[in-house]
Amino acid sequence: MKPLASLIPLDEAKKLVDENVQPIKRKEHVPLSDLLFRILAEDVVSGIDVPPYDRSAMDGYAVRAVDTFSAGKFEPVELRCVGVVHAGEVPSKKIGPGECMQIATGAMVPEGADAVVMVENTERIDDVVQIFRAVPPGSNISKKGEDIRAGTVVLRKGELLTPAKVGVIAALGMSEATVYAKPKVLIVPTGNEVAEVGKPLNPGQVYDINSHTLSSILLENGCVPVAHSIVEDVAEELKSVLKKANDYDMVVLSGGSSAGERDVLEQVISELGRVIFHGVQIKPGKPTLFGLIGNTPVFGMPGYPTACLTNGYVFLLPAARKMARLPKRQEVIGTFPMAKKYAATLGRHQFLTVRVIDGEVYPAFKESGAITSIAHADGWIEIPPNVDIVEKGTNVEVHFF
Amino acid sequence: MKPLASLIPLDEAKKLVDENVQPIKRKEHVPLSDLLFRILAEDVVSGIDVPPYDRSAMDGYAVRAVDTFSAGKFEPVELRCVGVVHAGEVPSKKIGPGECMQIATGAMVPEGADAVVMVENTERIDDVVQIFRAVPPGSNISKKGEDIRAGTVVLRKGELLTPAKVGVIAALGMSEATVYAKPKVLIVPTGNEVAEVGKPLNPGQVYDINSHTLSSILLENGCVPVAHSIVEDVAEELKSVLKKANDYDMVVLSGGSSAGERDVLEQVISELGRVIFHGVQIKPGKPTLFGLIGNTPVFGMPGYPTACLTNGYVFLLPAARKMARLPKRQEVIGTFPMAKKYAATLGRHQFLTVRVIDGEVYPAFKESGAITSIAHADGWIEIPPNVDIVEKGTNVEVHFF
Repeated sequence: MKPLASLIPLDEAKKLVDENVQPIKRKEHVPLSDLLFRILAEDVVSGIDVPPYDRSAMDGYAVRAVDTFSAGKFEPVELRCVGVVHAGEVPSKKIGPGECMQIATGAMVPEGADAVVMVENTERIDDVVQIFRAVPPGSNISKKGEDIRAGTVVLRKGELLTPAKVGVIAALGMSEATVYAKPKVLIVPTGNEVAEVGKPLNPGQVYDINSHTLSSILLENGCVPVAHSIVEDVAEELKSVLKKANDYDMVVLSGGSSAGERDVLEQVISELGRVIFHGVQIKPGKPTLFGLIGNTPVFGMPGYPTACLTNGYVFLLPAARKMARLPKRQEVIGTFPMAKKYAATLGRHQFLTVRVIDGEVYPAFKESGAITSIAHADGWIEIPPNVDIVEKGTNVEVHFF
Repeated sequence: MKPLASLIPLDEAKKLVDENVQPIKRKEHVPLSDLLFRILAEDVVSGIDVPPYDRSAMDGYAVRAVDTFSAGKFEPVELRCVGVVHAGEVPSKKIGPGECMQIATGAMVPEGADAVVMVENTERIDDVVQIFRAVPPGSNISKKGEDIRAGTVVLRKGELLTPAKVGVIAALGMSEATVYAKPKVLIVPTGNEVAEVGKPLNPGQVYDINSHTLSSILLENGCVPVAHSIVEDVAEELKSVLKKANDYDMVVLSGGSSAGERDVLEQVISELGRVIFHGVQIKPGKPTLFGLIGNTPVFGMPGYPTACLTNGYVFLLPAARKMARLPKRQEVIGTFPMAKKYAATLGRHQFLTVRVIDGEVYPAFKESGAITSIAHADGWIEIPPNVDIVEKGTNVEVHFF
């Protein structure tokens, strides 16, 4: 039983995490249906011209533009319609002087034609089509390769594949793409008192919560959580688990709420790698530990569920996104007045879980160990270390979960 | 070839979609690891007391509070330490008068003890513990059931399961929960010119893009897209597909960019159900169609990829979220000045895909058929029907994809 050696400020802890977490380099081929929100690991180069053929942009008539030059609203030109081409078809003939062909939007423009007249500017009488507007060459035609030439880089390495960009990959006919792998994160619940969900509790046990909140945060932020079974807080057990750290991109231990348990973890990480910090000037979540085993970042999260959850958002989430190469999280933040006065802790940056009811902010936090501190919370507010009282009516920024 | 009978305003179309889409009623049991961002279909009632036993909130000594009442900073009380209880253990004995037991955070409080003195307020010499602070009964103990009593409703039907709430379900020892099913949405690519991704193109064909952008939007918004094979734009084919509409919660057809194809779809939906609107005063995406077959909403999306994409965000996304019971999408919107003048179309609400470069907004839109209209876009801006020119420097709101 000894206190934490030294607490470091929140910003320093964040910076140390950021400096020691590197974007993933591993790549994988992923089928089109699984590409959403993945990050391209290679430029996407088109293998085809888009459009792949001269294509009509309108329903109308394919013509030789020169044949329409004398047409006007009251002096139509008359052309002979020699056929029809629907989308997906190859035109049955060429267009000669004085001829035209009915054409659908998206259909292939017949040889000889160099423009399309919109149906609205025509009138058809049997196989004679009256053209009421002169069109220059190229009108209403998307030329082969006009949009994208074969060989062009269409999307670049590092781009996030939004629905639009998934569509772009489909447009090139590609059924897969090369993206960065999702970081594989081992989640290790620790603690002699922790029991697995779904099994009956023995006396003195509580259910494992933190694995599930942390897995959820990792899932939401581009990682693949891998669940380890519950590990006892003894050095040999932790060591045998952490020797496998380099099989993963990151390791997160949760549990170990007592000082003794934390010391064991610190000792084991020191032996296998190095501890970068242990103890942060925050509340709750002071005993958070961060280290490296080889190049694998290792988080030791506090055991109390509220502390573990807010630490998950504050430290683990940015690390996960940086490693997964995702852009910064778009936080949902709302500003509302406090419904009541709240006494904070001087000297520690506080994360207070809160609920927003009728536009006012109520503390949801009871104590770090309470589940209702998170069950009834919509998000959290941050109270800087130099504030001891947040008065009723003060506007605060709520970070929504 | 005929024009759309009548275009309705954007807001009316949105309202009609909203009125005809109902939140899903089907429920399913889902394991804990898959509950993230699902919607509870039943209240979650705790089957256990939390904490499940009187639990120490601190590292320290379990005592009878009355024995500490005379303790002070300079006048410690001395108690005899009769053992130690670690987290996960059952205390080996009761505490009698003048006795105490070393206890870890999270451990079970021994019988006879009614308070815990923090280790910081003690000094131990062999089996004698000096107590330097008087504590009232209950100090540093979380009483059995204090946080949640067995039988209490902890989460309510309709709540969104954020990481915090997934943790709450774990805290109760539940390995699954009852949530609303994700709406199953059939996506039907139509068009004689449309080819499946991954296969070579025949002359006059283009790849199916819209299925993939729409699937992505549905995936992101709580639905399960089910891909149908490509269907020819002929009445019998469409009819045989749409007769199965009631096997799905929603059907989305994409393709059919020419007026003739749209007419076929309108006719088939009229025969099997009813068309609610066909044609909206927007650009691009004017020929959007919406109807019902039985209670199943059916969207006919425009064939052009840009039109299909923006329509996907404007009409399909809110419908998907309402059906999936998800809260309104938290749109990411940024306000930036236009980098250049843009001429819009009077009388139609325009969705213009744009790119933001160095804090300025550039139109990405070339034409509805162009893939680069979406490949190089970050989002879109909306231009109201009564605006014909957006001047350089005008601040516009970019809706990011």
